[in-house]
Amino acid sequence: MRVAVVGLGLIGGSLALACRERELAAVAGYDRDREVRAAASVRGACNTVHDTLAAALDGADAVFLAAPVGALGQLAEEALALVGPECVVTDVGSTKRAICERISDPRFIGGHPLAGAETAGIEHARADLFDGAAWYLTPQAEATTGVLYERLHRLLAALGARPGALDAVEHDRIMAAISHMPHVVANVIAAQVADALAGEGRTPLAAIGPSLRDATRVAGSNSAIWGDIYVANSAAIVAALGRLESALAQARELIAGENREAIIDWNDAARDRRAELLDTAIGGATQELRVSVPNRPGVVAEIALALGSAGVNIVDMVLSPSLDGSQGTVALWVVGDDAAVRAEGLIAQLALPVARP
Amino acid sequence: MRVAVVGLGLIGGSLALACRERELAAVAGYDRDREVRAAASVRGACNTVHDTLAAALDGADAVFLAAPVGALGQLAEEALALVGPECVVTDVGSTKRAICERISDPRFIGGHPLAGAETAGIEHARADLFDGAAWYLTPQAEATTGVLYERLHRLLAALGARPGALDAVEHDRIMAAISHMPHVVANVIAAQVADALAGEGRTPLAAIGPSLRDATRVAGSNSAIWGDIYVANSAAIVAALGRLESALAQARELIAGENREAIIDWNDAARDRRAELLDTAIGGATQELRVSVPNRPGVVAEIALALGSAGVNIVDMVLSPSLDGSQGTVALWVVGDDAAVRAEGLIAQLALPVARP
Repeated sequence: MRVAVVGLGLIGGSLALACRERELAAVAGYDRDREVRAAASVRGACNTVHDTLAAALDGADAVFLAAPVGALGQLAEEALALVGPECVVTDVGSTKRAICERISDPRFIGGHPLAGAETAGIEHARADLFDGAAWYLTPQAEATTGVLYERLHRLLAALGARPGALDAVEHDRIMAAISHMPHVVANVIAAQVADALAGEGRTPLAAIGPSLRDATRVAGSNSAIWGDIYVANSAAIVAALGRLESALAQARELIAGENREAIIDWNDAARDRRAELLDTAIGGATQELRVSVPNRPGVVAEIALALGSAGVNIVDMVLSPSLDGSQGTVALWVVGDDAAVRAEGLIAQLALPVARP
Repeated sequence: MRVAVVGLGLIGGSLALACRERELAAVAGYDRDREVRAAASVRGACNTVHDTLAAALDGADAVFLAAPVGALGQLAEEALALVGPECVVTDVGSTKRAICERISDPRFIGGHPLAGAETAGIEHARADLFDGAAWYLTPQAEATTGVLYERLHRLLAALGARPGALDAVEHDRIMAAISHMPHVVANVIAAQVADALAGEGRTPLAAIGPSLRDATRVAGSNSAIWGDIYVANSAAIVAALGRLESALAQARELIAGENREAIIDWNDAARDRRAELLDTAIGGATQELRVSVPNRPGVVAEIALALGSAGVNIVDMVLSPSLDGSQGTVALWVVGDDAAVRAEGLIAQLALPVARP
């Protein structure tokens, strides 16, 4: 099999490495940036790196388009004009409706790997980037042929990913809910709270709590990537924000009513819904532990070592220091009640106060 | 000096321990729960534990009321009826407007320590709980006498805390912005996303990303505490939610307009506002590092140990695993550019990809 990878950044470079390391295909690479092509050659990610798109696509059985979301539509059209009738073309963009509406060619199947992209560039590419990663495919019911879909699905599974089919509009709706809308909220909260604290800088009042830290952590994520995402998925994001505004208005009215029992019912329900989300995501019931710690260098290491050497994996963690960093709380999530009980015991042995809220 | 502590949970117990360990005062304790009184006696947190409020308050120079927010108003009235004319009475509730409007007695000064309360109960009390913690005081300009305010301020500073005065209404407005409103948002988002994913549980689509994990982390926090807070600070929370709804509507219109440049400007501004918040809170410019890691037991320990043994303190951290937990990203925040440069080098030495976004 011959695979072409167009765009040799973190995702494209990792795809090429994974294909080669697992001996799945000969990989032909192309990037429109000459320096990136040179870096890819040095890295040895591809069997061959080409100076033109046409040369890279020549004879390909499968083509991965790993460019920014805003460039994918035109790139897909160019690629489809160059490849043969039995070649499957896919992309790795994080929104799918726009490109799937634009490209009706039966050889195109939209794709979206949920794989880390925090450290960009081919220098961070890794053959194991897609190990166990969900990889959404958005075939078009009327158009996509079975043979091309099966080839792509099998290739992704062989790469270590977990491919699953989904309607493009549904994909964008879900991504708006689980990722794009929370990014907008973080942006809005960061601005609003900065406004609320304006002028408080010289008092001890400026402490920001762990809830605010969490709520704003993704504020202002990479603008080049997110500018494209907000534009390409605007319809689904706008719909999700509309629902959020309605739900916030309901919560506001509930709180304005000052009915403590009703407020507690609503708060308890939110806890259950969050647990539901984590369970769905991780495939087991996550358990939370809260540890009070002196916030000195090394204390996180002690906890992580104690759990790690006992084989208890930490699936999520947040460290919330006090104003001056002298102490704080570590919240840890582990999977399963057994793991939680063991973790609690191990942490207690470190003489740190631990509780399961 | 003689200090009375009413309510012997985590905060009250830690107050008593801190007073005794620092030899600031003889501490008389009271809790309305007989079992808590017994546990406090065993723990030795107070010099004396009493069976009635009146006995505990007898001869006190300062009284701390460390009961749940919903009980503080009546408790303050009872305490003020029992103590002498030169005794200062304060509380530790996380909302201040309601109690300060109810209690006009010049001997009462509202208070609110920003100290960890995740692990409740006297068994988790610690003498160093307030070390470096901001402690808001809400004196009443027309009523509070200088001598009582000065005594309370000096006592808190001697406990290791950093007291600062603030108008009660302003206190509640700020807490609504930095803590209460983000909790409401987490509750609302958890429910909305659980709805959006309903029925997707059997597909790989249910992956929840790090942004959603952060956005919902405080969903459904302790209902007994938060029921009181939402009721006691409803006016300020309702106002903050109203502003949030307006700002979200503006963001929604911006995104609906699909003007990429305008969206990027807004996103860049959000990044700046979040950095402003962290800088204000931590007293230096925080720097973020992102590390791609295999999510095996021990990897967090390796990073934390490498930084810890080099004296680089991690002020915030979030671990975002992939769907199956096989790999992920650790985001770390350290204070200052020097620390960030050193951390980057130390992590690179561990052969982990690291970037400063």
